[in-house]
Amino acid sequence: MEIIGWDIGGAHIKVSKINFSKEKTITKQLYCPVWMNINNLNKSILKIKKQLGRSDYHAITMTAELSDIFKNRNKGTKKIINILCEILSEKKTFFYSNAKPFLKKKEALKKTNNINSMNWHATANFISDFYPNCILVDIGSSTTDIIPIKKKRVIAKGTNDYKRLLFNELIYFGVIRTPITAIEKKKNLIYENFANLGDIYRVLNKLPKKIDLGPSQDNKSKSKNDSARRIARIFGKDYKKNDFNKWKKVALQIEKKQKKILKDNINKIKKKNFSSSIPIIGAGVGEFLIRNIYSKNNYFTFYSKLKSIKKINAINCEAAISVAKLLNSFLKNKRSKF
Amino acid sequence: MEIIGWDIGGAHIKVSKINFSKEKTITKQLYCPVWMNINNLNKSILKIKKQLGRSDYHAITMTAELSDIFKNRNKGTKKIINILCEILSEKKTFFYSNAKPFLKKKEALKKTNNINSMNWHATANFISDFYPNCILVDIGSSTTDIIPIKKKRVIAKGTNDYKRLLFNELIYFGVIRTPITAIEKKKNLIYENFANLGDIYRVLNKLPKKIDLGPSQDNKSKSKNDSARRIARIFGKDYKKNDFNKWKKVALQIEKKQKKILKDNINKIKKKNFSSSIPIIGAGVGEFLIRNIYSKNNYFTFYSKLKSIKKINAINCEAAISVAKLLNSFLKNKRSKF
Repeated sequence: MEIIGWDIGGAHIKVSKINFSKEKTITKQLYCPVWMNINNLNKSILKIKKQLGRSDYHAITMTAELSDIFKNRNKGTKKIINILCEILSEKKTFFYSNAKPFLKKKEALKKTNNINSMNWHATANFISDFYPNCILVDIGSSTTDIIPIKKKRVIAKGTNDYKRLLFNELIYFGVIRTPITAIEKKKNLIYENFANLGDIYRVLNKLPKKIDLGPSQDNKSKSKNDSARRIARIFGKDYKKNDFNKWKKVALQIEKKQKKILKDNINKIKKKNFSSSIPIIGAGVGEFLIRNIYSKNNYFTFYSKLKSIKKINAINCEAAISVAKLLNSFLKNKRSKF
Repeated sequence: MEIIGWDIGGAHIKVSKINFSKEKTITKQLYCPVWMNINNLNKSILKIKKQLGRSDYHAITMTAELSDIFKNRNKGTKKIINILCEILSEKKTFFYSNAKPFLKKKEALKKTNNINSMNWHATANFISDFYPNCILVDIGSSTTDIIPIKKKRVIAKGTNDYKRLLFNELIYFGVIRTPITAIEKKKNLIYENFANLGDIYRVLNKLPKKIDLGPSQDNKSKSKNDSARRIARIFGKDYKKNDFNKWKKVALQIEKKQKKILKDNINKIKKKNFSSSIPIIGAGVGEFLIRNIYSKNNYFTFYSKLKSIKKINAINCEAAISVAKLLNSFLKNKRSKF
C-alpha cells in the first residue's frame, strides 16, 4: 500500500510518500506562499501530485488556514479541504483530527476545530508509539512545539494556537522566518522586515540549503556576507566585509539567547507534568538547537525512529511522515475489525 | 520666493511648497514604497513635481537610503541625490546637513553621513528658533524621535541611527507600520506580519484617514472590524463581530503600554540634560500619544508655530516644512553677507 502524507503550511507544503510493503519513503518540500495568493495552493498541490504519481490514500494535516488570506481559520480549513478533495479525489483523502484520528470530507467540514493547526498533534501521536513518556520539541522555520506525552497520550494543555501560546506549548519562533526582535527583546532594534533568524543561522553555518527554501527578506542572496549585512541593518549599522566576525559574534549571542528561552520553557513543561527524568525528542530544521542543550543519555531525535529514510530528507517533513504512518495504522485497524 | 521642502522616506514622500511672500503653504504626502522598487522613487518625484508646479528652490532631507534595496546607506544616499538633482535641476537643489546647514550636489555626494537620516535634525533645528530649551518628540508611522534642545542647539548624543537607538533618542516604534510585538514584548504572540499598530489606533479611532496612507498588512480594508480581526490574529484568535469591544480593550492596553515606554524614555532624556522644567513639543501622526501624557501648561505642538497651515495638513510633513523654512533663512543670510 502507498500513502502520501501532506502537511499544508502557510509558506511551505511538505509531503511524504510511503510505500509500506517495500518500506520506501520519498519526501518533498515546496515553498508555497498561500498567504500571497490562494492559487499558489492549487498549483503546488497539482505539481506535487504529478511528481509523486499515483497513491492509494492521502493523509492530510494543515496550518495554512491561519494565513490572513482567509477571513478566519474555519473558512480557511473548509477551503483547503475542498481544494484537496477536488484534486486528490474525495474517496482517497483522510484528514487528521486530534479527536478521532481521521475524518472524511463531510465530517471534516463540520469539525474544522479538530483539524486546523493539528500537525504538531500528528507528530506527537506518531512518536508516542516509540516514547510513551517524553517531551517532543519540534522547531520549524517559524514556530516551536513543546509537547508533553504521558502514557502514550498527548497531555498538552492547549488545544488551539491561542491556548498553546498561553501555556508556552507553542512558541512563535523557529530558526528561519522569525524576526530577530522575537529573541532580542531588550535592545532597541529596527522593527523592519530587514532580516530574520535565517540570517543568524546562515552566518553560523547551521541551515542546510536543502531546507532553506523561502526568499531572504530583501530577496538578495543567502550568502554569509549578505546575511550578515541584513543582520547589521536591524542594528542600524552599515555592513563592511571586514565586519563579518563581529556580526558572527552577535549571531552567536542570539543563538545563546534562543537556547536559553527554549530550555526554560521545556523545563517548565517538564516540571509541571513529570516527576522523574524523561527523554527529550528533537525534530524540525531547528533540531540542532535542542541537541545542544541536552546530554546524549537523555536526548533522541525523531529521525532515529525512521527506517528507510535519511535524516536530511525527513527534516521538516515530520508531520507529513507521521500522518501517513498514522493513516496506515488506522486503515489496518479498521480492516482488522471486519 | 517659493521653496519646496522634500522629506524622502522609505515608505512615504512628504513635501511642502511654501510661498514666502504670500505666506502660503501646500503640503502633500504620497505612499511610495522605495524598498519595493527604486523606480517608485523616480515616478513619485516626477508626479509630485508636476502637481506642485515650478519653484525657485528645493530643500531635501531623507531617510529612504535606509531601504534594503540599497546595498548600504552611503550608496542609497548617493543614488537619491543623483535622482533628485536630475529631476529637480542641480542648480535649484540643496541638501540638508547636520553640520553646515545645506550642501549642493558635489559636496553632498562626499558627505553622505551628514545627510542621511537627518530629517529629525531639520525639524529640531527649525523648532529651536521658537523653543531654545525643550524636548521635541516626533512620532511618525514607524519611528519616534526624542530630541533634546538646549540654548538653541540640538544636544542629542546620537549622530546616526545606531547611536540614536542606543541612547533611546530614536525608538523604533510609531503608530502605524510598527508590529504589535514591538510593544507587547512579554506575551507570547504570533510573530507574523498579520497586524500592526495602525490597527490598534484605527480601532481606537485615533488615526486621521488623510495620513493613514499605506496598505494594511493583509491588503484588506482599514475598517474597525477588519482592524480588530487583524489584531485578533496576532493573539492566535479568530474574530467575531461581537468581540469588537474585547479587542478594543486590548488596543487600549497596548496604547497604555506604548505611552508608558514613551514617558519613561522622555523622562530619562530630560533628567540627563536639564535641571529645570522645560516644554515638551509634540509632532507627527502619533502626537496624540504625547499630548495625553503631559499637562497643558508645559506641552506645545509643533503646529502651534505654523501660520497659514492647518494642523491636519502639517502632520507628518514636519521635516518637509522645516527644511523649506530653514533653506529660506539660509539663502537670506547668504544674500545679506554680500
